[in-house]
Amino acid sequence: MNDDNQQTVPLLGSSLNYSAGIPSSGDNQQHVRIVNNLAMAATKQTNVAVTPTDDESDCDTITSRTLLKKRTGFVLPTPSNTDIENGKKEAEADQADKANCTTPLNPNNQKNGSPSFTDRLKDKISNAVPTVIQKKPREYKLKAFVGFLFLLVVFLVGFAYIFYYQQLSRKTYFERIRFTKEDRIMRVYDDNGLEALRGHMGASFPTSQKSYKCHDRDRPPNSTLCLEWMGRGRFSLAQTPNKNHDDKSRCYRIIWQSLSADTYPTDCYEMNNQLWFGAGAVLGQQHDFAGWPLNRAEVPISPFVTGSEVRGHNGWGQVLRRYFMNSKAAAIIVDDSTPLWVSVNANQSQMLCLQSRSSGFPFFDHGEESLVSNTSTKRNGTKNNPIVHSVLNYTICTAADLETLLTSLADAWWDGLRKDEMEVVKKLMEDPVWRFQPRADDNQTVQSLMKYTNSIVGSVWTSPGYLLIDTPWEERTGDLEFDPNRFQGLSEALEIIHRKGFKVAVTVRPFVSTFSKTYKSGLDYQLSNSTPDSVGTWIRQPYGEGSPALTSFNGDHSLALADVTSRNISEWVADRLNTLIKSYELDGIFFESVTADYLPHYYVTAKPLPDPSKLSSLWVDAARQVTTVLSVTSATQMPRLPTFVAIPRLPSTWEGLTHLLPLVLTLSVSGYPFLIPPPVGGISNFTKPDKELYIRWLQVSTFLPVMQFATIPSSYDAEVERLASNLTGLRQSTVLPILQRYGGSSVFDGLPIIRPLWMLDPFDKEGLDVADEFCVGDELLVAPVLEPGAREREVYLPKGVWKDGIDGSLRKGGRWIHHYRAKLDQVPFFTRAAEGTRL
Amino acid sequence: MNDDNQQTVPLLGSSLNYSAGIPSSGDNQQHVRIVNNLAMAATKQTNVAVTPTDDESDCDTITSRTLLKKRTGFVLPTPSNTDIENGKKEAEADQADKANCTTPLNPNNQKNGSPSFTDRLKDKISNAVPTVIQKKPREYKLKAFVGFLFLLVVFLVGFAYIFYYQQLSRKTYFERIRFTKEDRIMRVYDDNGLEALRGHMGASFPTSQKSYKCHDRDRPPNSTLCLEWMGRGRFSLAQTPNKNHDDKSRCYRIIWQSLSADTYPTDCYEMNNQLWFGAGAVLGQQHDFAGWPLNRAEVPISPFVTGSEVRGHNGWGQVLRRYFMNSKAAAIIVDDSTPLWVSVNANQSQMLCLQSRSSGFPFFDHGEESLVSNTSTKRNGTKNNPIVHSVLNYTICTAADLETLLTSLADAWWDGLRKDEMEVVKKLMEDPVWRFQPRADDNQTVQSLMKYTNSIVGSVWTSPGYLLIDTPWEERTGDLEFDPNRFQGLSEALEIIHRKGFKVAVTVRPFVSTFSKTYKSGLDYQLSNSTPDSVGTWIRQPYGEGSPALTSFNGDHSLALADVTSRNISEWVADRLNTLIKSYELDGIFFESVTADYLPHYYVTAKPLPDPSKLSSLWVDAARQVTTVLSVTSATQMPRLPTFVAIPRLPSTWEGLTHLLPLVLTLSVSGYPFLIPPPVGGISNFTKPDKELYIRWLQVSTFLPVMQFATIPSSYDAEVERLASNLTGLRQSTVLPILQRYGGSSVFDGLPIIRPLWMLDPFDKEGLDVADEFCVGDELLVAPVLEPGAREREVYLPKGVWKDGIDGSLRKGGRWIHHYRAKLDQVPFFTRAAEGTRL
Repeated sequence: MNDDNQQTVPLLGSSLNYSAGIPSSGDNQQHVRIVNNLAMAATKQTNVAVTPTDDESDCDTITSRTLLKKRTGFVLPTPSNTDIENGKKEAEADQADKANCTTPLNPNNQKNGSPSFTDRLKDKISNAVPTVIQKKPREYKLKAFVGFLFLLVVFLVGFAYIFYYQQLSRKTYFERIRFTKEDRIMRVYDDNGLEALRGHMGASFPTSQKSYKCHDRDRPPNSTLCLEWMGRGRFSLAQTPNKNHDDKSRCYRIIWQSLSADTYPTDCYEMNNQLWFGAGAVLGQQHDFAGWPLNRAEVPISPFVTGSEVRGHNGWGQVLRRYFMNSKAAAIIVDDSTPLWVSVNANQSQMLCLQSRSSGFPFFDHGEESLVSNTSTKRNGTKNNPIVHSVLNYTICTAADLETLLTSLADAWWDGLRKDEMEVVKKLMEDPVWRFQPRADDNQTVQSLMKYTNSIVGSVWTSPGYLLIDTPWEERTGDLEFDPNRFQGLSEALEIIHRKGFKVAVTVRPFVSTFSKTYKSGLDYQLSNSTPDSVGTWIRQPYGEGSPALTSFNGDHSLALADVTSRNISEWVADRLNTLIKSYELDGIFFESVTADYLPHYYVTAKPLPDPSKLSSLWVDAARQVTTVLSVTSATQMPRLPTFVAIPRLPSTWEGLTHLLPLVLTLSVSGYPFLIPPPVGGISNFTKPDKELYIRWLQVSTFLPVMQFATIPSSYDAEVERLASNLTGLRQSTVLPILQRYGGSSVFDGLPIIRPLWMLDPFDKEGLDVADEFCVGDELLVAPVLEPGAREREVYLPKGVWKDGIDGSLRKGGRWIHHYRAKLDQVPFFTRAAEGTRL
Repeated sequence: MNDDNQQTVPLLGSSLNYSAGIPSSGDNQQHVRIVNNLAMAATKQTNVAVTPTDDESDCDTITSRTLLKKRTGFVLPTPSNTDIENGKKEAEADQADKANCTTPLNPNNQKNGSPSFTDRLKDKISNAVPTVIQKKPREYKLKAFVGFLFLLVVFLVGFAYIFYYQQLSRKTYFERIRFTKEDRIMRVYDDNGLEALRGHMGASFPTSQKSYKCHDRDRPPNSTLCLEWMGRGRFSLAQTPNKNHDDKSRCYRIIWQSLSADTYPTDCYEMNNQLWFGAGAVLGQQHDFAGWPLNRAEVPISPFVTGSEVRGHNGWGQVLRRYFMNSKAAAIIVDDSTPLWVSVNANQSQMLCLQSRSSGFPFFDHGEESLVSNTSTKRNGTKNNPIVHSVLNYTICTAADLETLLTSLADAWWDGLRKDEMEVVKKLMEDPVWRFQPRADDNQTVQSLMKYTNSIVGSVWTSPGYLLIDTPWEERTGDLEFDPNRFQGLSEALEIIHRKGFKVAVTVRPFVSTFSKTYKSGLDYQLSNSTPDSVGTWIRQPYGEGSPALTSFNGDHSLALADVTSRNISEWVADRLNTLIKSYELDGIFFESVTADYLPHYYVTAKPLPDPSKLSSLWVDAARQVTTVLSVTSATQMPRLPTFVAIPRLPSTWEGLTHLLPLVLTLSVSGYPFLIPPPVGGISNFTKPDKELYIRWLQVSTFLPVMQFATIPSSYDAEVERLASNLTGLRQSTVLPILQRYGGSSVFDGLPIIRPLWMLDPFDKEGLDVADEFCVGDELLVAPVLEPGAREREVYLPKGVWKDGIDGSLRKGGRWIHHYRAKLDQVPFFTRAAEGTRL
């Protein structure tokens, strides 16, 4: 860059130095001083040393005489008329002199034979400059040319300056990251030097603001770059090892610290030109669904906490993960400590934005107000040492390809897993879950239950598996006792059911009605155990002196939530649950978790809840002390096995079925391999699902880790029963071995059991956004029919050779099969042919 | 002001004008121009026309020659060494010239014979000034004198300027208010021109900020003064008629509008040099008490809403009034619309501060956050049209004296008062209220009740009056049903009690336990009546989707409050209350109001509650539809008659008794004449109060508008019973007629029945802060003994002649009676002797 400067600037310097080079006589000493000062000023601006060039000295005497004559004009700001007339005469005299001067100059250059362009330029300049002083009217053109040259020089210098500073600010870090200070754009490159990620850092404040280097005191340890935008935020970048400490991916930690209460650190990543996966379930108007790819979703900036459709908000669904990755093999993993808000494609922006904001439900910052407060503590810090407000803390990783990335970032669950727990996992995958839905008005519920189990055992092809007694089985929500009116004789019935081979579980919700005995006993427990540490059994109102903060669920507005952040309360809950488990010898519970949006808007817990979504996992921790938690419906990370994650209750519609696969794929790659899909046919309120929907749903479920039934196949007709029997056969013979093999290895490598097509071939662009096919491990590809009345579909096969599951033929992969036919009783699936098989 | 300028400034002008008057020769034209410019600049600064004076012309030729010689020095900024040497020679020559010039000047002035001081001054000046130019070293003293004169002039002008602007800013409005813009001190003067009130306006922001006149658009109508402190607040002052539209007092309305979210308009009035009364009950650590005068209280800035001791806060008590007045006959009445915070004497400041702040419990500004919000509405307005945040709106009134002030501002209650209601008022004053306190564990409560009423009727001297069945009479708080276990056979018992002449009332609290049937039926009512307008029976949590916001009372943490801001709910409450009233043919209720601090910290009501203290009066409005509300315990203004205001339950201690009189006096002058004092002996939890305390308390109660008993006198001994009988006789014969006369007139003039001594003689400084005596009307003065074991006390009698109630002697007022003796069975009281009685 500095070379550029030295090439262009001398032109400017030389044009000004003519006057400086004049030998001065004693007479006009004063004027020379003035002129010299001008020249000095000029050279100061351009920073170039002033040296007279050879060309200039030729006309020394003439120019100095000219200057001498003009003396009066210099001294008086407004020359009199006489002065001007004198000037004219002098100018004419100068012209004569000039003729004498220019003539010898040209031959001087022509000595070289052929005059080069630069020579001519030099001529013109040496001609032009004295002319300005001599004021010859006929040389306007030259003057204009000199003016043009001058402007050109100014432009070049200016351009060089700007370009230089742009280069200065766009620095490269760790070879793979480029960051421009001015527009705060960060580019992350992969191993091949291709851009994998482009982020707009600090999108919440204007780019016009200038950045400064951080004070050493504020610099996070090991950070390579740390910049501060005064009164806004502090940004740092550091290389960091990846999760599994291997060399499969490169990771960089980014920390934004907000330095003002109303600046929320926000980074936005471009979503166009790449597909994005991860995040978890997105919340729609009706129910959870998945953006597969995430580019298809549209979520305004919302707290990234578990949410549910019932509260009627658009935002995030029941199972989430702070994990976003794109088809260019870059991933963003947000730290648990960040009160995270995320927007996807908000206002069609094609941006994935991450924001840290600790105020705003459910991240509730209660402030410091009280009834009587005359000290309003302002948390501003000093100007030189500002207080840090929200912190956005996340890691970016890149790898050679998407599958490698996934591998390097996956969790493992083998640590501390007991044999009996692994048995539960195996059992859940082997045998179906039978969900029994009791009616609130059925006083013969135990008979209904017996009938239900009998019809299961009645079919030869079915196996007992887990019997799940769904809600409502209590009289009042939260009783943790079977409704004595509807469940008379349950103990005896359960004994028979156990003997038939069933394992029995119940759905448990954390809500407790204020009309339940549990609520009262909780308040009594609170009164008898009121130590300074444990201020209440139930989640309380702020400043409420122990008054519970109630919440609403399913139209019940008077529900409390146990404050399981307190160890005492957690044990109290476990005790009550234990009574239930022991009374009926239950084998486990299916936990219908409370999502963060069910928290009361203003609440206090005994210990703070930085991520309100975690309340659910605290409840599960409590329950796990006394029973097996077989599944949770809401999570922000894979619970400890044998707890599966239940895919939210999808409605019994074709739309529900369509959303099933993207959900399974999204959750699988987000680190939830052990999934329980919703019951076959979806959730229908005591009505049988549509028969065709049921069949197609059954076909999909056959290939998923767990099969769950609410409606028994035999409740349709012989055709459905035969079909179910066939599928069970298929599952036992073909699917289950693969599921169990990949399930077993997932415990160690954390990789999905159900996989998207891109895990088989991450470089295959065609397979990237296929959302209606899935693979079981790497060996089995399923392309179920998901539309009503459809008897054919388009199927994409990744590269390799595939054996058709319907007709046994071999098919070449890496291409589409158009109009692939599948009757109602057929499900298109393909097994990978042995290595080396050729068509 | 301008005259001042013209008198002083010419001296300054003339000293500069010497050079301007010099006749110029052609040779030095250029320099003269420069000098002229200097002179021009000088005249511009001082704004005085440049004219040469006679004195100056005497030395014309000399000075101009001097100037001519100095030419070189003018042209060249840095004279060469030669120039300086020339200068020296010239200076010597000038000195010689000067000698020639000064000599003829002096005789010139001596022509007048005796030279006056001004003549001599002129001489000195005319000598001095040329000297400056001629540079004669021997006239240094004159130079110093001129310098002194110059400084004097500058000082005078400066002083005049400052004084003028102080005068400008301290303007007088309406003849009686002076306001200084700079320090924002407002002084209010009474009719005699004495300062009645001195306030520090806008105490919450620095006085250094400059004020501007309001934009016409922002000026409140009729305001005489409107000033705006940019980005802080807008202050306006307007004359306004007083409450009763008479000419007894002069009132001024003050409106402060905050122009920034974190500036709370705050005005502080000086409390020293005057006594303050009003406000209502102050909340102490133990119970309500009164600052009588208010100067004795010390309250940090707290929301001016009704509060109770149970919540453990320091602040304001159960009965308040936005009404403060001082001994200099000035009152401050704050508008209902202001979310008022008040401090008294905070940090020993001797200040009464009023603040408007709409954020902070219980003035809860819920903000606009929601679960999913990407639009954070900022309420800043534009710079030129800022949004008004809090508004502090109050009226200041002054009158000739304190009693006149009280009269002109008092309310009247006759409007719409029915005859039967007036009968209730009369009955309450005539017969005692008998408070029956049932025990929670007494299963024979009806028998206890019968025993209680029998022992009342057993005494010949007692009259049945109102029987008040106190809490707890329900099984669960809020049942609005007598506990069926404890009150078996109540209906029959009440029939007997009614026949004995009692009227029967119950204490009703607005809290409803979540375990009460009322709570459940409220939720059901909510479900069945959920229209967009009525979102809930119970006061709800913000963003809670109808979940009630619970509160705590007396260790019960699970209590709801009916949302009586909704008309529907108000009627629903009245219906349920009506069932209770009708079932037992009750004659009324004593309402234990909910104070604002019992509201849940975060709450929503169907209609907004600008003053949370008013929730209580909405409840009373509901109850009044179905029964007689005999008293309330919390109020911010006198409820509609026949509802009395019950003085909060004072504890059964001597301290409780000491606090009774200041409370009675404070509430009386705050506009609550119809008071029910606490039961004789104070509130003791099922133990008999100390006998001496009981007797002394009984003696005070005899003279108060209503007598209330919990403990029956006969439960002590014959002595107490005899004493009670005597006092009853005294009450019937002497006190009651006066009470009823003043009660009757209070309905029309709103004046207190029980009066402080200063109402009898507002100019008597001695009687101003007497807190242990009181008058019944203007005729009866009571000076009860309030200390344990005391058999004498100091008594102050206002002017006039008083007849001693104990020995019948006549006593001259306007002085103290020291060591006035009163045995245990005697209460010192004095009746005013007939007009014209002389000792």
